[in-house]
Amino acid sequence: MRIAELSRASGVSTATIKYYLREGLLPSGLLTSSNQAHYTEDHVHRLRLIRALLDPGGLTISRIRSIVTALDDPDRTFDPEELTAGGPGAGPLAPLAADPRTIATVRSLTERQGWKAPVDGPEFARVVELLDVLCELGQERFVARLDDYAEAAGRIAAVDEEVLRSCEDAPGRAEGLVVGTVLGDSLLSALRRLARTGRSAAPAPPFVVSGAGETRS
Amino acid sequence: MRIAELSRASGVSTATIKYYLREGLLPSGLLTSSNQAHYTEDHVHRLRLIRALLDPGGLTISRIRSIVTALDDPDRTFDPEELTAGGPGAGPLAPLAADPRTIATVRSLTERQGWKAPVDGPEFARVVELLDVLCELGQERFVARLDDYAEAAGRIAAVDEEVLRSCEDAPGRAEGLVVGTVLGDSLLSALRRLARTGRSAAPAPPFVVSGAGETRS
Repeated sequence: MRIAELSRASGVSTATIKYYLREGLLPSGLLTSSNQAHYTEDHVHRLRLIRALLDPGGLTISRIRSIVTALDDPDRTFDPEELTAGGPGAGPLAPLAADPRTIATVRSLTERQGWKAPVDGPEFARVVELLDVLCELGQERFVARLDDYAEAAGRIAAVDEEVLRSCEDAPGRAEGLVVGTVLGDSLLSALRRLARTGRSAAPAPPFVVSGAGETRS
Repeated sequence: MRIAELSRASGVSTATIKYYLREGLLPSGLLTSSNQAHYTEDHVHRLRLIRALLDPGGLTISRIRSIVTALDDPDRTFDPEELTAGGPGAGPLAPLAADPRTIATVRSLTERQGWKAPVDGPEFARVVELLDVLCELGQERFVARLDDYAEAAGRIAAVDEEVLRSCEDAPGRAEGLVVGTVLGDSLLSALRRLARTGRSAAPAPPFVVSGAGETRS
């Protein structure tokens, strides 16, 4: 199909398609003349993937470029877990020194949960960092329930693993891992809010009342 | 304390502090002369909150402005759940019409889980949207495990609720809800990766091998 049809099939404007082509997010089409290229269903799929990682996924164009470059690598020398490390909000790790007590907390958590994640890996550092930030903000009460949150995260990871094991080929599994991790985070966050709305729907909303009556615990 | 001390205490540069003051994210200090203001520990705390919502939280300056404006509202007429609706990656809902089958899927999910979330609420629409995007990308296998993911999200929501109920005052509960929701999403996403790294550490890494041998399921 031509670029105008690709635009119709994907719902992405031709200007944006040309931008993705220039930025290396979308592979070039097959040139059929000096100013015309031919695109396939693979291009439609790739455009959907880019849009999903951008919008519900919340990733940046440059993160998406590294992801699709790795997905297109025929030698598959990358580790897809690394591509999605840290999630949408993940900037560089804060330069703050981690609190040694937090490191010990996370280390014993991984032991209790039977996780074999390396202590020097980015996932471990990220959990430590987030717990330190929560404490710094005076939200130790969330940190006190770390085991409960970890238990739920472990169940989610187990389901992820079963789903990914059901993918028959390596490229499909790599894309499934990326999409399932990035959009899965958004889905879990949406389900968590949906569950909470449901739970707080029965009694009167706890936060909309003003005044002193609200200070009862 | 003066702005230079506030900068030292919070680790935020004076230029950035002035920017937050101009943008209305940080309340003004008490003016002690025409060009000097006095800041308190509340300002240090507010700066930590802004930085955390920006960096691990992944929120934009304008989202944070609405959050702190609401937190500072003495009448507390807002619903804190709304402030964090959708999570970091949440843009405006896609203009795509939702698939009626997906709506039915989510409706029966909420019934099975005993959630009383309204079908016309933003959380419901968000879950429907994400499931539609997953299907559009050919990742129906994740959607097939929706009940497992929802079960885990429900446990997380129940822990959230217990933690928030333990906050004694309404302002503390509102800030706890915002911080716990935004940073909690990042924490859960980090724990999910930590658990997965741990799970995949035992056998040989499944993705780094190249070639045809990888196509076995």
